[in-house]
Amino acid sequence: MVSDIEVSQSVQPEKIQDIAAKIGISQEQLEVYGTDKAKIALHKFDHLPRKGKLILVTAITPTPAGEGKTTVGIGLDDALNLIGKKSIVAIREPSVGPVFGIKGGAAGGGHSQVIPMEDINLHFTGDLHAIGIANNLLAALIDNHIYQGNELDIDVKNITWKRSLDMNDRQLRLFVGGLGNHASGIPHEDGFDITAASEIMATLCLATDLLDLKERLAKIVIGYSRKGEPVTAGQLKAEGAMAAVLKDAIKPNIVQTLAHNPAFVHGGPFANIAHGCSSLIGTDLALKLGDYVVTEAGFGADLGAEKFLDIVAPRLGKTPDAVVLVATVRALKMHGGLNKKELNEENLDALKNGLPNLLRHVHNMHEVYGLPTVVAINKYPTDTQAELDLVREECQRLGINAIEADVWGQGGAGATELAQEVVKLADMPADFTAIYDKEDPIQDKIEKVATKIYGADGITVAGPAKKSIKKLEHLGYGNLPICIAKTQYSFSANKNSLGAPKGFKVPVKEIKVNAGAGFIVVSTGSVMTMPGLPKAPAAEKIDVTADGKITGLF
Amino acid sequence: MVSDIEVSQSVQPEKIQDIAAKIGISQEQLEVYGTDKAKIALHKFDHLPRKGKLILVTAITPTPAGEGKTTVGIGLDDALNLIGKKSIVAIREPSVGPVFGIKGGAAGGGHSQVIPMEDINLHFTGDLHAIGIANNLLAALIDNHIYQGNELDIDVKNITWKRSLDMNDRQLRLFVGGLGNHASGIPHEDGFDITAASEIMATLCLATDLLDLKERLAKIVIGYSRKGEPVTAGQLKAEGAMAAVLKDAIKPNIVQTLAHNPAFVHGGPFANIAHGCSSLIGTDLALKLGDYVVTEAGFGADLGAEKFLDIVAPRLGKTPDAVVLVATVRALKMHGGLNKKELNEENLDALKNGLPNLLRHVHNMHEVYGLPTVVAINKYPTDTQAELDLVREECQRLGINAIEADVWGQGGAGATELAQEVVKLADMPADFTAIYDKEDPIQDKIEKVATKIYGADGITVAGPAKKSIKKLEHLGYGNLPICIAKTQYSFSANKNSLGAPKGFKVPVKEIKVNAGAGFIVVSTGSVMTMPGLPKAPAAEKIDVTADGKITGLF
Repeated sequence: MVSDIEVSQSVQPEKIQDIAAKIGISQEQLEVYGTDKAKIALHKFDHLPRKGKLILVTAITPTPAGEGKTTVGIGLDDALNLIGKKSIVAIREPSVGPVFGIKGGAAGGGHSQVIPMEDINLHFTGDLHAIGIANNLLAALIDNHIYQGNELDIDVKNITWKRSLDMNDRQLRLFVGGLGNHASGIPHEDGFDITAASEIMATLCLATDLLDLKERLAKIVIGYSRKGEPVTAGQLKAEGAMAAVLKDAIKPNIVQTLAHNPAFVHGGPFANIAHGCSSLIGTDLALKLGDYVVTEAGFGADLGAEKFLDIVAPRLGKTPDAVVLVATVRALKMHGGLNKKELNEENLDALKNGLPNLLRHVHNMHEVYGLPTVVAINKYPTDTQAELDLVREECQRLGINAIEADVWGQGGAGATELAQEVVKLADMPADFTAIYDKEDPIQDKIEKVATKIYGADGITVAGPAKKSIKKLEHLGYGNLPICIAKTQYSFSANKNSLGAPKGFKVPVKEIKVNAGAGFIVVSTGSVMTMPGLPKAPAAEKIDVTADGKITGLF
Repeated sequence: MVSDIEVSQSVQPEKIQDIAAKIGISQEQLEVYGTDKAKIALHKFDHLPRKGKLILVTAITPTPAGEGKTTVGIGLDDALNLIGKKSIVAIREPSVGPVFGIKGGAAGGGHSQVIPMEDINLHFTGDLHAIGIANNLLAALIDNHIYQGNELDIDVKNITWKRSLDMNDRQLRLFVGGLGNHASGIPHEDGFDITAASEIMATLCLATDLLDLKERLAKIVIGYSRKGEPVTAGQLKAEGAMAAVLKDAIKPNIVQTLAHNPAFVHGGPFANIAHGCSSLIGTDLALKLGDYVVTEAGFGADLGAEKFLDIVAPRLGKTPDAVVLVATVRALKMHGGLNKKELNEENLDALKNGLPNLLRHVHNMHEVYGLPTVVAINKYPTDTQAELDLVREECQRLGINAIEADVWGQGGAGATELAQEVVKLADMPADFTAIYDKEDPIQDKIEKVATKIYGADGITVAGPAKKSIKKLEHLGYGNLPICIAKTQYSFSANKNSLGAPKGFKVPVKEIKVNAGAGFIVVSTGSVMTMPGLPKAPAAEKIDVTADGKITGLF
């Protein structure tokens, strides 16, 4: 089988200036990085009105079988262009760390990829590095403030700001720094998160421009004083230098799909402790330049789409014109109880057992939020006609079309029917209903997401979380939207509970404010924010030739 | 007074393609970053022969008064171009971390700068970030190897590889990582160096091409097994992925001086634990494209120039055609015993007391190494005629011209006389003598540098260092050049011993092999490889406007 990197390297990219010109971006509005990557000079588009239809690609609850949400998003974008629509795909940019572990790249797959995939997966245009520097500058300023006399009386036992590194490195999860002699800091517990999990990433992805970003950075709560008052980055005079470091990272990156359609690849926050969507700035700009904008949200629709609709959309001032819910027959059979080795055989019973997962997501998007929705069946060679028919029939009972797409094998040509359906849906009047009001008490907001979206019977709130809720509401953070960190593998907080579980409550364990990003993080269990490497890291296979061609990236 | 950033921002950069064209680099040979920065596609110049004369800019022993070596180097380059010579300046690229501390930028000063100085001082083209990732990937692979079973039997008490971050952060100097539960690594002591101090930086700066870099990376010793055998990056299969991460960082960066002359700004290793010179690849390429190449070496001539001549030149296969030794009257008066507040008044006695520092460096360059040498007096408004005359006279006693240059105030126009002298010297036959043979025993090599260059009576070798020397010679590392880490503030190992001290011995405290970079690091005292921030960090003053213009960088 030909690997993604081989498919990717078999296509000669067009000059990025020519790609940008397709959506009306002139040379002067581009900051080119090499021949096939560029950043877009933001302020040059301030005057333009939005014109595009917004298409949100989301998915069923993820399984080890793989759903291919990004691949479908890219393929759909190519298909829209193929049927004559000016469409731009706006997706997240990958982190470097996971490339060395198991995960592999995050730039689509097969014939639906964005290129140059090696660069996009490695340093790209340096955004992750800039975010890391801004994050660690703030960390250094905090510890330096304490070391130099601690005027703000920061409680070293209550610093919530962590350092960040774009590397899968479990060794750095928990450490005690500031050891050694008097000149080497103040000993205290600390930890590194992978850079994508930094609040700076979430903040950048929700900012509307550089000044808005700077204001948000100033609001970041880095910990508490010994009196229990929040201490902010602004009190440390950190926001100017942090924003300066991020002045280029905030500009959307433009690359191309394998079919030479423009793609915005910008920002990549986690989808559990953060909102998991590409930058608001990129989406906004795409809406000004394209007739259709295909964007995606991380993990399943209970996490990514919910956060897009409840956190991003209010800031963007626009809800999606259509939702594409990606599913695979294989993944649904896993939800129905099969293991990964049993997926190659037809199994209608297992599929039937697993379908409620898809149907609950469909219900949520279509009935709860009121958005025009289509199911995209990301096709595999092992899918049988009977299986595909079953998925289609079950969706049709809910009034939803399920359409097969072979984007991995055929690119846009494999998704023209899906594209036609999307165009049709996006022209329909939507009747969006928010599932909570931002003025609701924090606990109510959590309860509404849990019951309306997860299908839970309710929530249980642990003692410390209750105290935090009270404190945050007292401090004036109560009207922020909530961002629930929950396992992505289940509607419930139990990762082994597949399908469409019922009769469970969602345990709320910890509450924290991300005042820069502008949301309250609600933890329902331990969330891994610094991955480790596996026994045989992917790094061992990566190599480069004398003239700089990368191999073994997968 | 107008600040450096204001002078820098007052000049409109020419398009980098036009700058590159001045030295015969075509569009196809450039990888442009924005409009005013680019990387040069290396392998496209393999066939070209070298033609340039190499000019090494070095300095007296640094003082808080400032010497302005980089500023003189850039001004000299502009002056050479002004008098009709095709000259390229090849200098180090700055680190981000120090920008937030006290140091300020490192891109020249006044009217002798390379631009865009904000970008060069912040992320530039991402080289430091790539080096950090390569460094930390290796660190993660080491700890992961131990965590996954430790097949190589790495001794956790004898891991010499540290992590790196481009930040002034004393808190990270010494830490214990791998804390927490079983899934979170193996507890052991560890530390971060600032990225410029990483062996990867030194290795990249001494590599001849990407394959040579990969081979060197494989040789890096990361620590020792419990049997005491060295463990290398190659044994961890790390070199392919590390080289892949560095595939762009290895390409020289081209920018321009304020006078729109091409400047290579590439690589920036420490000048104590490493060799302190810009990349060998950049210098080599400049020698192919320019008639003159002005390069500089870090700190005073006892450190930077010695390392250029004994580590870099043998690999480059070329020694300098002329040496420019930068001094200021103010700094020499500090060497003569004045403090910083006393420098504005004429003081011939102090100057006379301080001059032996300059004269010993002159002697070393001219007599010991046998290189044509000129002294550049970097002029300040407070210098009196009598002071300038005294410096000139004392140099002339050694047969050396001392020439005033006002590059800060006038750029190249302030250094045309210096440029004429450099041209004259570079045409003279040089008679270079190496001060040691690489086959000399390690201890002899150290002794030769100490006595011939520092003016020491000899060396004293501590017990552990003696053991290390024996071990490294046994392991086959004995024929590597040495890289002495000594205070930059004195010829001796005592930073308070200014001028030209005599009657001292150099204490050798620790010996370590940097097998990737290809030298033996000899420590004569504790060297700071992770700086801290001051009470009022420069970061507090840095800001950015709505349209991305950086202010307050210094």
